[in-house]
Amino acid sequence: MDKIKIGIVGGTGYTGVELLRLLAQHPAAEVVAITSRSEAGQRVSDLFPSLRNHMALSFSDPAITDLRGCDVVFFATPNGIAMQQARALLDAGVRVIDLAADFRLKDATEWEKWYGMPHACPELLAEAVYGLPEINREAIRKARLIANPGCYPTAIQLGFLPLLETGAIDPASLIADAKSGVSGAGRKAETHILLAEAAENFKAYGVGGHRHLPEIRQGLEAIANKTVVLTFVPHLTPMIRGIHATLYATLQREIDLQALFEARYADEPFVDVLPQGAHPETRSVRGTNLCRIAVHRPLGGDTVVILSVIDNLVKGAAGQAIQNMNLMFGFAETTGLAQIALSP
Amino acid sequence: MDKIKIGIVGGTGYTGVELLRLLAQHPAAEVVAITSRSEAGQRVSDLFPSLRNHMALSFSDPAITDLRGCDVVFFATPNGIAMQQARALLDAGVRVIDLAADFRLKDATEWEKWYGMPHACPELLAEAVYGLPEINREAIRKARLIANPGCYPTAIQLGFLPLLETGAIDPASLIADAKSGVSGAGRKAETHILLAEAAENFKAYGVGGHRHLPEIRQGLEAIANKTVVLTFVPHLTPMIRGIHATLYATLQREIDLQALFEARYADEPFVDVLPQGAHPETRSVRGTNLCRIAVHRPLGGDTVVILSVIDNLVKGAAGQAIQNMNLMFGFAETTGLAQIALSP
Amino acid sequence: MDKIKIGIVGGTGYTGVELLRLLAQHPAAEVVAITSRSEAGQRVSDLFPSLRNHMALSFSDPAITDLRGCDVVFFATPNGIAMQQARALLDAGVRVIDLAADFRLKDATEWEKWYGMPHACPELLAEAVYGLPEINREAIRKARLIANPGCYPTAIQLGFLPLLETGAIDPASLIADAKSGVSGAGRKAETHILLAEAAENFKAYGVGGHRHLPEIRQGLEAIANKTVVLTFVPHLTPMIRGIHATLYATLQREIDLQALFEARYADEPFVDVLPQGAHPETRSVRGTNLCRIAVHRPLGGDTVVILSVIDNLVKGAAGQAIQNMNLMFGFAETTGLAQIALSP
Amino acid sequence: MDKIKIGIVGGTGYTGVELLRLLAQHPAAEVVAITSRSEAGQRVSDLFPSLRNHMALSFSDPAITDLRGCDVVFFATPNGIAMQQARALLDAGVRVIDLAADFRLKDATEWEKWYGMPHACPELLAEAVYGLPEINREAIRKARLIANPGCYPTAIQLGFLPLLETGAIDPASLIADAKSGVSGAGRKAETHILLAEAAENFKAYGVGGHRHLPEIRQGLEAIANKTVVLTFVPHLTPMIRGIHATLYATLQREIDLQALFEARYADEPFVDVLPQGAHPETRSVRGTNLCRIAVHRPLGGDTVVILSVIDNLVKGAAGQAIQNMNLMFGFAETTGLAQIALSP
Repeated sequence: MDKIKIGIVGGTGYTGVELLRLLAQHPAAEVVAITSRSEAGQRVSDLFPSLRNHMALSFSDPAITDLRGCDVVFFATPNGIAMQQARALLDAGVRVIDLAADFRLKDATEWEKWYGMPHACPELLAEAVYGLPEINREAIRKARLIANPGCYPTAIQLGFLPLLETGAIDPASLIADAKSGVSGAGRKAETHILLAEAAENFKAYGVGGHRHLPEIRQGLEAIANKTVVLTFVPHLTPMIRGIHATLYATLQREIDLQALFEARYADEPFVDVLPQGAHPETRSVRGTNLCRIAVHRPLGGDTVVILSVIDNLVKGAAGQAIQNMNLMFGFAETTGLAQIALSP
Repeated sequence: MDKIKIGIVGGTGYTGVELLRLLAQHPAAEVVAITSRSEAGQRVSDLFPSLRNHMALSFSDPAITDLRGCDVVFFATPNGIAMQQARALLDAGVRVIDLAADFRLKDATEWEKWYGMPHACPELLAEAVYGLPEINREAIRKARLIANPGCYPTAIQLGFLPLLETGAIDPASLIADAKSGVSGAGRKAETHILLAEAAENFKAYGVGGHRHLPEIRQGLEAIANKTVVLTFVPHLTPMIRGIHATLYATLQREIDLQALFEARYADEPFVDVLPQGAHPETRSVRGTNLCRIAVHRPLGGDTVVILSVIDNLVKGAAGQAIQNMNLMFGFAETTGLAQIALSP
Repeated sequence: MDKIKIGIVGGTGYTGVELLRLLAQHPAAEVVAITSRSEAGQRVSDLFPSLRNHMALSFSDPAITDLRGCDVVFFATPNGIAMQQARALLDAGVRVIDLAADFRLKDATEWEKWYGMPHACPELLAEAVYGLPEINREAIRKARLIANPGCYPTAIQLGFLPLLETGAIDPASLIADAKSGVSGAGRKAETHILLAEAAENFKAYGVGGHRHLPEIRQGLEAIANKTVVLTFVPHLTPMIRGIHATLYATLQREIDLQALFEARYADEPFVDVLPQGAHPETRSVRGTNLCRIAVHRPLGGDTVVILSVIDNLVKGAAGQAIQNMNLMFGFAETTGLAQIALSP
Repeated sequence: MDKIKIGIVGGTGYTGVELLRLLAQHPAAEVVAITSRSEAGQRVSDLFPSLRNHMALSFSDPAITDLRGCDVVFFATPNGIAMQQARALLDAGVRVIDLAADFRLKDATEWEKWYGMPHACPELLAEAVYGLPEINREAIRKARLIANPGCYPTAIQLGFLPLLETGAIDPASLIADAKSGVSGAGRKAETHILLAEAAENFKAYGVGGHRHLPEIRQGLEAIANKTVVLTFVPHLTPMIRGIHATLYATLQREIDLQALFEARYADEPFVDVLPQGAHPETRSVRGTNLCRIAVHRPLGGDTVVILSVIDNLVKGAAGQAIQNMNLMFGFAETTGLAQIALSP
């Protein structure tokens, strides 16, 4: 099979190296260029020894790297980069998957408020497809430009989806208490995510307002087709990978919750509804593209509790990006994404 | 100063060794006996090397140890032991502080339902004082028998207390999403709390119903003086010590939340209300008897979010027991409890 | 391709589940039976949720499971089990790979001294091939019975191998200071490997004599063809997987150490010699069958320092067992063993 | 009792905050100034919430803070700062304790080689007393200027001390395989000590030559009164605090090792020799000023193995500095240093 040619912009962060891990094992994809201003000239496997003998490429200087010969370019960059370069790539016929937030919000004003900078190409926001296959599969197949969802938004939307689209819960009563491993903060030299600071510790952050909130709200409102009121509290957990979203809502009609979730996700290759009464563990999806979900109704009351776990770097970032790529290029959706989590 | 004589029943678990650590530094207390069936004859400091040169005692056989000469006996035992022995000790004039659950619920039927065994002395339930000093300080001073609160219940009740007692929140809307370090599961040889199972992992448990639920509900209803509806979801966190309770409720009238909390806890030596906008970290209370609390109202909405952290083994167990002892014996409430958390 | 039929005895420990993870991804192997006394009847994926949708098998009762139809049977059992059953399987034409220690020592008396029980079939010790492919590849291809090496012995022998077989070091001067993640202690309900005991802690153990010592010594003496004197100190490290062996020896002649190691391992698919001056990290081999090695000569002195890392459950157990299986059945040696380590 | 006045230069690192924790509990010491260029004006307890209600001080600007009124000034700064300021303080009659490396080596040329900068006041090197009380207690009592030992050097010298000073081991055969928690790398925003990089990982570093090597060698040679040959390999361990030094040497005469160590340290308040056969755990000294040591002779051979553990931030830094201060000011040596390690 002819392999598609892949470019990666900004490959030195955690989503970048995770793309490399997954693409190195993908039978239909070949990474032909990976750019990094800071590491240009260095071999990828020198920075990431896990890739020794799996990836011969070196980082190239973004200023002189022409990505227009690629079939698809992934942006694994900080927010604000992809929107500078997407137009030129699209014009050259290259498809674009942005793992950052540049194209996630439909409303440029809202985006600018949360991200604190003017948007460089608001005219592309309407075209950009929000890359959550469980909701937008058909649009993704035809898309030129994918806004790959954030990690928290993936876990939370997949958890609320069956309930909101069937009107089973009150959309004005939503609470998402989410816990993330520290890799979610990125590969940045910052004090608060040092092992000596973040190990043996647990804390909430951003309770006053986190950038993923408008993204989640936009997604949930599209599902519910009405206004939702969501309280979202993220927490930093002393582990490397994993998101556990604990979701709360008020039931507004009787429904068989277990059957609802099982039916909704019966054909989804990457959403696994656990048996009644189960508690999904983040480690059970570590390194995989799975979202595992369990639904509870404690003591038979009106509050439904959904437990939703993903690996923030896979289903919450690089794996979902490749799932989107598979859809865009007509590959089987699971191609290259069949990893089994390490246990223990 | 004459020291009071202390007996400890069941000193080989985590609450037991934590009592020993704190009592070894207490200027007015002397541990005269510590019993353990399994370790009888062994020196305490052989089992817990951290106590070498701080504690000369050996474990004694509970079958032959007469604790009736003690001023106070702490039960750091599994549920169901203290209720067998409390009566005889009280009759001998010994005060009793139970760190297990035997005397926490006022309703024996409810207790038997959650703990799965008949209660051995239901007639003592009315007399037993629930040892949360921030609520029951005066009763504790006069008590013969203290039911020391559970770890989750301590963090959760202190978080909801100012809001419930002033009627600021709807008591039918309470959610407590709580996260605990694994020492909360005790020093038991069980597979699921092995490092290889619990590290790099996060999960909820007991969503269907946890034994601390009726205890919390009883406490909150006493505070609110009306029925409360509470959803309580505990989670296991990959760290040794610490509880972080994230609490949600619906405001039912306008109130200055920060001022409310600061006023309520102004004179409390072990509750520290953080400044507006803060996020308490569990490590900031590790090894100390403090509860640190922050209160948030995200985006000015109707949902109030309270963040409450304690060390599950100190304010959530042994430290609070000593705080109760200090009150019972007329010592300054903070005696022996001025530890500073390690940082980092 | 016709798949070979595989049986696993004792699949509920960490080496068992790791075999399952690797074999589920192996294109030429099919697990047809996995036995467990304690879990008979339960689905494998109920005990190990990481295997949901990857492994349909249930545990079967060893008392009634006939493994004589298998092509190969792996023993992932405690020491002392395989030696009871190997004879019957071999007689039925089934090949056997023992991941425990039953066939690792050639001297039955020595084995009985270290393992504290009589050996059930000492007559098989001579036939059993020690399954370290980098030393015994040709014998492994023809073997009926493989003694799969221990985790420490694998890391340590591969580190000393080039130096000992060339006589570059004094065989009477060897020190192996080895550090292991806690999964090396197995999936056993024991207090000392609880997260609350083993996290935030580091300690040596078994300094007086560890069972892997005679195995390592036997292997090193076979390489050196003379007596070796080895001091072996294992340590417990607060992480799940990984062994880091730091090896010390006295050089007895001048030699280009880097060139020696690179030449020795040039054709080895699973030994990766790092560039001069490097320090291998255990995480770079996590989940993979690799041994990564760096060789140092600090300040140009007479002491050579070798750093050797493996994943104790893969190259130190299940992965090496499959490497041996590949050799025994004529598959490419790397079949099913191309995993890339997670990073981070 | 009149308290001595203490100044701290550079209080935002881990040794600085550890000094604050310990001094806040010291009955005879009062911190009157703590400087930090970056945090000037901020309250100490805002940066380190563990100190809320224990420390009212704010950081002051070093450029305008006059420390000449202090009785003693601690430098908790990077290397190269104390040597700029020590002269002026000493001339003003202020005693100085440097927790960095500026005064640790007696040979300025050697110092400049390892630390890569010219020494600002080599004339003070002869006067500076190396602050290891177990060796230099009397000199410390009279010192004006203390070079507080490094963390690795403390653990390693205390381990070898009884053997070297009695000539029991060959000084040309020493190996120190040392493992440190990541707080030893300081509170620096560097990628390699992020939790996502350093957790679930183990690696050696600096095998080619670490700055603590000349310090250790200088100390050991002073003890042995002859040249020593030492191989020193440090490792990074996935935990916050703790050093475990595993030391190897060749015995050159018969000696009762256990008796030797017990006699040597019988009167030392902070060195605890464990019983025969024990393995000290780093957690048993966490947060304390203790060094715990066990001595082994595996299988009765010629190699002695010493296991020596400390808390790198206490006996390896701030605690030892206060022990030195106690000696210099005539306080009981253990004043303020009686903490008990958390367990678990």
